[in-house]
Amino acid sequence: MRASQFFIATQKEAPSDAELISHKLMVRAGLIKKLGSGLYSWMPLGLRVLRKVENIVRDEMNKAGALELLMPAVQPKELWEETGRWAVFGPQMLKIRDRHERDFCFGPTHEEVITDIARKEISSYKQLPLNFYQIQTKFRDEIRPRFGVMRAREFLMKDAYSFHTSADCLVNTYNTMHTAYSNVFTRLGLKFRAVRADSGAIGGDGSQEFHVLADSGEDALAYCEQSEYAANVEMAEAIATGSRAAATETMHEVDTPKQTSCEDVAKLLEIPVSKTVKSVALMVDDVFTLALLRGDHQLNEIKFGKIEGVQNFRLATEEEIRGNLGCPPGFIGPVGVSGQVRVIADKTVALMSDFVCGANKPKFHLASVNFGRDLAEPSVVADIRNVVEGDASPDGKGTLSLCRGIEVGHIFQLGTKYSEAMQATYLDENGQSQVMQMGCYGIGVSRIVGAAIEQGNDDKGIIFPRNMAPFDVVICPIGLDKSEAVKQAAEDIYRQLQQAGVDVLLDDRVERPGVMFAESDLMGIPHRLVIGDRGLAEGKVEYKGRTDAEAQNLQATDCVTFLRDKLGQS
Amino acid sequence: MRASQFFIATQKEAPSDAELISHKLMVRAGLIKKLGSGLYSWMPLGLRVLRKVENIVRDEMNKAGALELLMPAVQPKELWEETGRWAVFGPQMLKIRDRHERDFCFGPTHEEVITDIARKEISSYKQLPLNFYQIQTKFRDEIRPRFGVMRAREFLMKDAYSFHTSADCLVNTYNTMHTAYSNVFTRLGLKFRAVRADSGAIGGDGSQEFHVLADSGEDALAYCEQSEYAANVEMAEAIATGSRAAATETMHEVDTPKQTSCEDVAKLLEIPVSKTVKSVALMVDDVFTLALLRGDHQLNEIKFGKIEGVQNFRLATEEEIRGNLGCPPGFIGPVGVSGQVRVIADKTVALMSDFVCGANKPKFHLASVNFGRDLAEPSVVADIRNVVEGDASPDGKGTLSLCRGIEVGHIFQLGTKYSEAMQATYLDENGQSQVMQMGCYGIGVSRIVGAAIEQGNDDKGIIFPRNMAPFDVVICPIGLDKSEAVKQAAEDIYRQLQQAGVDVLLDDRVERPGVMFAESDLMGIPHRLVIGDRGLAEGKVEYKGRTDAEAQNLQATDCVTFLRDKLGQS
Repeated sequence: MRASQFFIATQKEAPSDAELISHKLMVRAGLIKKLGSGLYSWMPLGLRVLRKVENIVRDEMNKAGALELLMPAVQPKELWEETGRWAVFGPQMLKIRDRHERDFCFGPTHEEVITDIARKEISSYKQLPLNFYQIQTKFRDEIRPRFGVMRAREFLMKDAYSFHTSADCLVNTYNTMHTAYSNVFTRLGLKFRAVRADSGAIGGDGSQEFHVLADSGEDALAYCEQSEYAANVEMAEAIATGSRAAATETMHEVDTPKQTSCEDVAKLLEIPVSKTVKSVALMVDDVFTLALLRGDHQLNEIKFGKIEGVQNFRLATEEEIRGNLGCPPGFIGPVGVSGQVRVIADKTVALMSDFVCGANKPKFHLASVNFGRDLAEPSVVADIRNVVEGDASPDGKGTLSLCRGIEVGHIFQLGTKYSEAMQATYLDENGQSQVMQMGCYGIGVSRIVGAAIEQGNDDKGIIFPRNMAPFDVVICPIGLDKSEAVKQAAEDIYRQLQQAGVDVLLDDRVERPGVMFAESDLMGIPHRLVIGDRGLAEGKVEYKGRTDAEAQNLQATDCVTFLRDKLGQS
Repeated sequence: MRASQFFIATQKEAPSDAELISHKLMVRAGLIKKLGSGLYSWMPLGLRVLRKVENIVRDEMNKAGALELLMPAVQPKELWEETGRWAVFGPQMLKIRDRHERDFCFGPTHEEVITDIARKEISSYKQLPLNFYQIQTKFRDEIRPRFGVMRAREFLMKDAYSFHTSADCLVNTYNTMHTAYSNVFTRLGLKFRAVRADSGAIGGDGSQEFHVLADSGEDALAYCEQSEYAANVEMAEAIATGSRAAATETMHEVDTPKQTSCEDVAKLLEIPVSKTVKSVALMVDDVFTLALLRGDHQLNEIKFGKIEGVQNFRLATEEEIRGNLGCPPGFIGPVGVSGQVRVIADKTVALMSDFVCGANKPKFHLASVNFGRDLAEPSVVADIRNVVEGDASPDGKGTLSLCRGIEVGHIFQLGTKYSEAMQATYLDENGQSQVMQMGCYGIGVSRIVGAAIEQGNDDKGIIFPRNMAPFDVVICPIGLDKSEAVKQAAEDIYRQLQQAGVDVLLDDRVERPGVMFAESDLMGIPHRLVIGDRGLAEGKVEYKGRTDAEAQNLQATDCVTFLRDKLGQS
């Protein structure tokens, strides 16, 4: 593509409503143009990126045996009433009334439509399994659209729906989709993780989210560098490893006149915070309860709420603390408490020895406290904390790191939720009518572009992975209008690269070098060739990778081979 | 693709609401599935066809230098108010109110959105010309959706919009688009014509429609087989060729006791109808007027209304005829009429001699009538008739044929209609603000599929042109489950064809031959290979083209080469 025949419209200023760097850069680079709240046009440069993502998604879906179809965006109310979702979906669903006063919606998702197709088209077990997908425009009327294409109202989504005779078969396709999704994000060159979307309590991996890792992500994730384990921080299991060391000292009081937090106590005593135990005072129904956590750990309320017998709980008031322990908050602990007080220890705490905790006596803590000797073994030991960086991975294959992620995909074992409501049945081998098992699998195609930019950017602009970049290579000729040699060489290399199947942009606009470089960096083009008279005099051209610190000189005659190698490698 | 892993769902019955053969066949072949009134899902088989059309359209648009972008389907009311079309568009526009009570529409077209982009993105003449296009889902709330995808409410359209500094530049791009459209329909293998959409009175070809020729088309067209001339029948110019022959006989009365029509008179006199002249009695304002047409021609009211001084006209009543000519209808003519009667002759009539017309005397006609001798030369001679089959083409390059067409494309020189209303201006070379010239160019991508089937079908089903067919070739193995030799040969040929880049369907469902053949014929697959034990014993396979009367035997070893040739040729 020649820049003179393309449409490059970068801008200096980011829009005032842009909070995220990806939103700012996409507008500045001219990838998108706002039409209205949550409505964006994909300009020619941006559409090149979107299509590259779309094509990789399509290719992997096809390889995984899914069949592409295309369902209407506009869907009749009646189908949504069958599943009860017309009422449930709420104002996020954009409702429409047609000229005949019939109700429709601009589809936010397509479970109802595909299940309607399945119940009409599938009659026999012989036709199953089937996995249909589409890449199609969706609309969700977000109350506050923002982040550019990351939370737009109108967006491009790949949604797949599978139909099965058995849960085993569903799991099979679910796993195939897991692999396909991993392939998609790997080919896109993104750092990503498949994250358990639920606790895994109900039969394991019923649902997983795929997250692109980026500091600006809305979700906090824990993942293992050494394995594929990843989970939402709140869901990640905290593993306590090793065994409890023997007590080495006698329990004794320590003066902590102003130290009411574990951090302050540890600092005063010159010990690691990990040698302290904090007692979180809670009311579980009407029972005063101390939840014991290591000083540097945080209570995870979701996990705590899953302990048997613990349903309703809240933090205890200062009055309740004083009433039960005879001591103000800041100095409370589990030693010597009455039988009325319930003590629940985190798994990590249960393995500690010689620890420091509150003395239930104002301005004092206890040191060298040990279970079994100084207080009873805790009656309940459970995982009640958030994981932290460096925790052992629950799969035993390494340690956990924390990061933030942007959800770009979701795979889900639906079971019979929709097929039962809509009576999507088939006849089994015995001629008996059975309800189909279903799975659904979504990828936010347009969102991926934003997420990739959140992951790849610097102060010059976007750093696209190779397979997503709008162009592979940009050729910047210096003084194109003045030098026949430069023109010749630029055209020659342009032609050779095109013939080699390289997606190349020839910047023939006769702009100053600074403008050309700034724009190609902003647009995130991975490879740049600069062709000038000075270099050509020595048979050289200049190459710079988007993230290279320095440019390098190449023999002009070698540069096509050089770039082909680069593109093959990266 | 293996049929066992694909989704083939043909059905015997056409839907009861299907009027057109294309609608019936698309549903029967399983290309589409109805979701609601004017809403269709494109099933995997149908989507393959739609994508092939889409890809050819995209390729030709790219080759023509148009730049693809993607605008939102949902558009804010405010833009439409700028052009006044929010009110004008009427109930065909699907209006939407979002959760914040703001008004939008599901875009039926995108002039407003693209003009908004242009006015924001284009500031200088240096950026022009530009031609943007998209392939995108549109919605028009037809009052009575029908004909399947041919007049669906939700449909896929390619819409392009060009911007220019001058009308000349606009005409340039308009012509480029004309060529691109011709290329698209030629590559799709369709019989089509570019038709003048207006009379050409205002500066020539300001607008042209592209029609796929089919008997069921809604528009009547006249076209020249020997040239590219084509026009709506009502707009086609009727050319009178040759010169008037000399009179050979004296005018004389003939008895026509019951003959009140030219056909009946000609039959009685045993002469061609083309030797008769009929007089259509009209009141033009208050002037009684006879429009003279050859007996076998029809008055074209649009053309007649364009004669100078003719604005308001209607057929004369019997009373007016009797009052002005003293004779009832059926026997009236231009000979001997008073000076109060205006006579307007069609160009063809003006060249006639020795003709027959009414005598203005009940039960009599006049024969061998000649202008200049028996009556005055007509004061006005004009083209006032519809063209008929065999007329000379107005471009002088052959004769006209009549046919019917389905509009699948439209190119239009908009001028400044939208750019002026929305103030889409640029600075010219002198720094002066100027309004952009615009063109727009649409193709009904989904409609093309229906139109192609209207053009290509027989009693067995669809006859797709090669470039639109869902598959190039189907392999039908006979007794796949019983014969290892058949299985081996089928797999082998399947693999070879795939490697050769042929889009091949292997029907490995173990169906009866009759079912396989009927389904592949219904689906319109152009080439079929049948592989059976009997043929293989002699090293043969059977080939049949979709429209071939008979199958033929091929050497199995030659069949891949044979098919590659076939596909290369067709």
